[in-house]
Amino acid sequence: MNKGPLTDEEVARYSRLFSCVADPTRLRILSEIAGCGCDPVTVNELAERIGLSQPTISHHLKKLTGCGLIAREQQGRTVTHTVLPEAFAELRAVLQMD
Amino acid sequence: MNKGPLTDEEVARYSRLFSCVADPTRLRILSEIAGCGCDPVTVNELAERIGLSQPTISHHLKKLTGCGLIAREQQGRTVTHTVLPEAFAELRAVLQMD
Repeated sequence: MNKGPLTDEEVARYSRLFSCVADPTRLRILSEIAGCGCDPVTVNELAERIGLSQPTISHHLKKLTGCGLIAREQQGRTVTHTVLPEAFAELRAVLQMD
Repeated sequence: MNKGPLTDEEVARYSRLFSCVADPTRLRILSEIAGCGCDPVTVNELAERIGLSQPTISHHLKKLTGCGLIAREQQGRTVTHTVLPEAFAELRAVLQMD
């Protein structure tokens, strides 16, 4: 955050992104995706690893996609999700306090 | 987050910290502190720069202190606040997704 005070727009954007990340299930999803070297994962894989239902995982993936933190890719009948590293780099920059 | 999936304790801790950071006024406070090279700041200085009342700023500083993101220091009648860089480094590590 060493480029000076945030603008109103930046405050609104980062508030929304940090709120999205702060949800425990979404933190767990991100942690599972990162734990697999950020390779694309399916809803089924995440549901199995985290121990939650597929609709619950889908709901949270939709929130993360809506915030621009992950991307959804469809190949035939298989849907996978990957993280968008730029968005996370942006959030890390906001938390750069030294 | 490349050390593998988060534990339940880590999920709870980071969920609390990201929720704390996600508040727009607290993001603005952190941005003001970082914008001044992370030098200690008083409640008065922050209230003036952000354009909010001292009680409002104090309330949010208390939340940030309670989460271990900033530290409060008292010297005589002057109270200042500084960021705790280790806590922010920890949050940046959680957001390391590439």
